[in-house]
Amino acid sequence: MSPKPMTRPGGRSARVQESVHAAVRELVGETGREALTVPLVAARAGVTPSTIYRRWGDLQELLSDVAVERLRPETDPVDLGSLRADLDAWAEQFLDEMASPPGRAYIRDALLGDPDGTNAGQCSAYAAEQIDAILSRATRRGEAVPETERVIDRVVAPMMYRILFRPGRLDAAYARELVTNALDRP
Amino acid sequence: MSPKPMTRPGGRSARVQESVHAAVRELVGETGREALTVPLVAARAGVTPSTIYRRWGDLQELLSDVAVERLRPETDPVDLGSLRADLDAWAEQFLDEMASPPGRAYIRDALLGDPDGTNAGQCSAYAAEQIDAILSRATRRGEAVPETERVIDRVVAPMMYRILFRPGRLDAAYARELVTNALDRP
Repeated sequence: MSPKPMTRPGGRSARVQESVHAAVRELVGETGREALTVPLVAARAGVTPSTIYRRWGDLQELLSDVAVERLRPETDPVDLGSLRADLDAWAEQFLDEMASPPGRAYIRDALLGDPDGTNAGQCSAYAAEQIDAILSRATRRGEAVPETERVIDRVVAPMMYRILFRPGRLDAAYARELVTNALDRP
Repeated sequence: MSPKPMTRPGGRSARVQESVHAAVRELVGETGREALTVPLVAARAGVTPSTIYRRWGDLQELLSDVAVERLRPETDPVDLGSLRADLDAWAEQFLDEMASPPGRAYIRDALLGDPDGTNAGQCSAYAAEQIDAILSRATRRGEAVPETERVIDRVVAPMMYRILFRPGRLDAAYARELVTNALDRP
């Protein structure tokens, strides 16, 4: 179990994390994932390989941490004036991002180097936070809303399952059908 | 991309596969997964390490193939006389097996050593075949049935998503709630 700080540590520790993550992103962009090694990442980041092994355990755990950072949503869900419109837009964008080649690679990396499930749980927490934000906004508008866990089960889970296990139709109309199922039955 | 024969090949090839799979199962039982190496598996199976590398690429791909074999259902779904009862029983058993520590380890192994998604697709195909069998039986009884893909989205996907990404309530009542959602709306 390597330590995986979910709140960014301060000081030197934060600088090491940032430079190592940046080195991974640069090297993946330049040479691809297959050619990546801990010594290469260390040299680019200006740290020793043992710093990386001590903090992340191995390359897979480092890639998992980098992937979770990349899967962190960068903006609040867009406000389109109604629950239905907001959830449709969010689900379509989520599916678009997660089913893209980089999205699939990040999901895979996040799961692979994550023996205790911390990073997978963080990915799911990101989705839940975005859904919470949409539902809270709808509640403030006076709309009736389902529970967050229901939206996870009915919208997020089918999309992620199909991305990982069952290739097939993954388009905007599919995302909207899932939203219908989450909203129509209380 | 190592070759992954989904239909069992005959003759020597089949014997090699069977002895290598058996060696993995035995060694995992005796010493645990962490201590497993290709030379250890080869010695136990009575083949050369290069036979394993040639056929499976690396240990992760071999473990993925073994996991898919272990996830193959051994029996037809039980016939309890109605669609609702059959789906409830199947979903409860599926959740029980997949959420168990060995089930989780097999799902993880199946995904990890599976760069092209063949083995993940096979896991999903096993579930779809069992659901198909339940739905065909119900049709023969004259019951109205949902599409298989709807049952995948509404029953299988949420269970697998929670197992992989979102720890929480994973009990028989949860499985039955998911079946209700799959059956109540056509």
